[in-house]
Amino acid sequence: MPDDRTNSWEARAEASSFYGFTDLPTVHSRGTVVLTHGEGPYVVDVHGRRYLDANSGLWNMVAGFDHPGLIEAAQAQYARFPGYHAFFGRMSDQTVMLSEKLVEVSPFERGRVFYTNSGSEANDTMVKMLWFLHAAEGNPQRRKILTRWNGYHGVTAVSASMTGKPYNSVFGLPLPGFLHLSCPHYWRFGQEGESEAEFTQRMAKELEATIIKEGPETIAGFFAEPVMGAGGVIPPSSGYFQAVVPILRKYGIPIISDEVITGFGRTGEVWGCETFDFVPDAIISSKNLTAGFFPMGAVILGPELSDRMQAAAEAIEEFPHGFTASGHPVGCAIALKAIDVVMNEGLLENVRALTPRFEAGLARLAEKPNIGEWRGKGLMGAVEAVKDKATKTPFAGDLSVSERIANACTDAGLICRPLGQAVVLCPAFVMTEAQMDEMFDKLDSALDKVFAEVA
Amino acid sequence: MPDDRTNSWEARAEASSFYGFTDLPTVHSRGTVVLTHGEGPYVVDVHGRRYLDANSGLWNMVAGFDHPGLIEAAQAQYARFPGYHAFFGRMSDQTVMLSEKLVEVSPFERGRVFYTNSGSEANDTMVKMLWFLHAAEGNPQRRKILTRWNGYHGVTAVSASMTGKPYNSVFGLPLPGFLHLSCPHYWRFGQEGESEAEFTQRMAKELEATIIKEGPETIAGFFAEPVMGAGGVIPPSSGYFQAVVPILRKYGIPIISDEVITGFGRTGEVWGCETFDFVPDAIISSKNLTAGFFPMGAVILGPELSDRMQAAAEAIEEFPHGFTASGHPVGCAIALKAIDVVMNEGLLENVRALTPRFEAGLARLAEKPNIGEWRGKGLMGAVEAVKDKATKTPFAGDLSVSERIANACTDAGLICRPLGQAVVLCPAFVMTEAQMDEMFDKLDSALDKVFAEVA
Repeated sequence: MPDDRTNSWEARAEASSFYGFTDLPTVHSRGTVVLTHGEGPYVVDVHGRRYLDANSGLWNMVAGFDHPGLIEAAQAQYARFPGYHAFFGRMSDQTVMLSEKLVEVSPFERGRVFYTNSGSEANDTMVKMLWFLHAAEGNPQRRKILTRWNGYHGVTAVSASMTGKPYNSVFGLPLPGFLHLSCPHYWRFGQEGESEAEFTQRMAKELEATIIKEGPETIAGFFAEPVMGAGGVIPPSSGYFQAVVPILRKYGIPIISDEVITGFGRTGEVWGCETFDFVPDAIISSKNLTAGFFPMGAVILGPELSDRMQAAAEAIEEFPHGFTASGHPVGCAIALKAIDVVMNEGLLENVRALTPRFEAGLARLAEKPNIGEWRGKGLMGAVEAVKDKATKTPFAGDLSVSERIANACTDAGLICRPLGQAVVLCPAFVMTEAQMDEMFDKLDSALDKVFAEVA
Repeated sequence: MPDDRTNSWEARAEASSFYGFTDLPTVHSRGTVVLTHGEGPYVVDVHGRRYLDANSGLWNMVAGFDHPGLIEAAQAQYARFPGYHAFFGRMSDQTVMLSEKLVEVSPFERGRVFYTNSGSEANDTMVKMLWFLHAAEGNPQRRKILTRWNGYHGVTAVSASMTGKPYNSVFGLPLPGFLHLSCPHYWRFGQEGESEAEFTQRMAKELEATIIKEGPETIAGFFAEPVMGAGGVIPPSSGYFQAVVPILRKYGIPIISDEVITGFGRTGEVWGCETFDFVPDAIISSKNLTAGFFPMGAVILGPELSDRMQAAAEAIEEFPHGFTASGHPVGCAIALKAIDVVMNEGLLENVRALTPRFEAGLARLAEKPNIGEWRGKGLMGAVEAVKDKATKTPFAGDLSVSERIANACTDAGLICRPLGQAVVLCPAFVMTEAQMDEMFDKLDSALDKVFAEVA
């Protein structure tokens, strides 16, 4: 730890925190970065060090860390009505207005909204909804959930079971009945001589074979991120959703678009399913929904699932599910403002305007001999480190290449995220061209420094 | 619906909401109560109707709906740093300060804190922590979770599996391995001629028999609310925790005190485990933690679990779990203020001062021929409606007695909660004696009205 006084911020953080998703050796050797405030896309720590946050917090602080309109909306609602629930047929006016707005901006012509406090809770809720629905319709055996390897859907025991990452084995997860299809990442998983179109067809055939093997009457639903996020920013192979959606429709399997990261503009359209041109049965939203200013998730049911779920609930007079802060008036007021800021105050336009510069920056990095691929969509992107570009061979795991890159970036005042052997970038929608250039310059130098050490 | 204009608040709410924990026939016939703001313990709807909220929102708005200090703390932190996460060895200064404070006010001499967005997520996280811990220590078969019938621990698929309520069968829950012990409610479940002490001993014997039958080496942990909340405000039978804790210790089973409702003053001490004089291995906190002003939950690990969990995490270098808004700076700033308000600004003292008046009010209601029992601890209480007081026979379910009582109260400007055939009261800690008298007067009239109809 750089500061060994026992009352330093670093020591205080270590004394009482149980860290999650944190490399403990790095924390012990470098100390916790304790942040006090932010300015636009920058954050500042207790020592006055300033970092350009290339991750917009955790994909979510898309309007930056000091957006005046969002701050004002939050402050005004705290003064007006600082908390209530949405149980027992009561809810705040903000909750009613947000539900209307979410249906209005959704790809659905009508729908119904259920609130949670996170994307994890929203996915977990959607699984419970599907189990409830199928049982109510006389199909209690329809419980299996289909997701993909490298898909990330959260950390509750059920949403972690949906997440296709090997680290969940430390919890004895996934639970039974959570099935993971192949990851549609052509660069990494395409076979020798296989075209991208052939790869996509292989993914679709695997889906249908899995459905038939398991029995379509046992499958509750299919969940997919339009672009995999925490799996390492992985857009689907070309034509993926056009190939899999008809198969899911053929077997009557509901399609859930997990738009926790892609929702509200990240891929250049409001929804990722619009970018990839498919219409799901329900959407899971969180993160950008409040621009990171409040913990909130939402399940947005499309017309068919709205009707079926409502009929199932009416039959037993009550859907026995809900979180204390579901539809919190402050969260709803913030979300109403965040949607307005993204859609009507130029943020979505800025995503579109910046995307060519972003892609060019990623492509330049990918010219390095130790970058195997750049990939991305809109303002989410990644570069993948490799030991050997031709064979796509990764570096040895004990070199911790992407952690080293992230630490070298931190030293240079840039926060970016290691994911596997990739480095992920997901800048705020308020980023300027100059800030984007700063981001790529600093990452470029960090890559050169680390590759010189390890390559 | 009372207002049939399609643009009424009631119609707008019904058009786009998927309601949870809401009696749908009541919503259809009476319309959604859409709230705009609050004043102390009162809330006001879009029609200007004013209700005394005897539930403090959902047990949580203990400082009322317009506490100036909490509003100011929230507003100030929004201006300072309106959002960040606690991943990757970074977190806000507010997060560090809150973790220190939570350990300081806990019953533990030291400990570690992990943040979530709700009590559901905190219980779900604690289950994952236990699964992780036991597997790391070479006991991967230690996965079964012990809770009690009528215990309420949340609504994620796993926390709903812990919850001991029959309604979870509509989801095909509980999942396997979630075991429910008997509810220690002497009035309802005590046998003919059995003393309360004998009843408690029976509960303890059932626990030990269950442990032996299942195999102690298969049990991950025991979770209990010091006073069951959403099960209907059920304090344990006399000596309950003194009887069960030694058995759990004997078999090395971690004891988790779910203090989502009881934490921060509800029972007259800071923690319910203090009121009932036992020391758990970890505490689950939420609700009062932010006085309902922000969605937040926390797992507070005591010394032994802190050390064991930290060792297990160090061994794999990272605990792969965390929520985007875990340790959100605004939530932490609000919680720091809420703890101060409850502990140092007279709220806890007011709980203690009001408790005799509260108990006397409940006891007066229990003199009615159709109230079988009053029960409670501190400022959480319930009266149980019965058709026959001597035999404790409940009313027929299709009479919806407690819903009728709640609706009669709503008509009179009082919000209270039906739970089974009980009516639950959990007033804000800022309530005055006059407001408490108003609450009991209105409930008294509503009970007389409904019992005249059904008895």
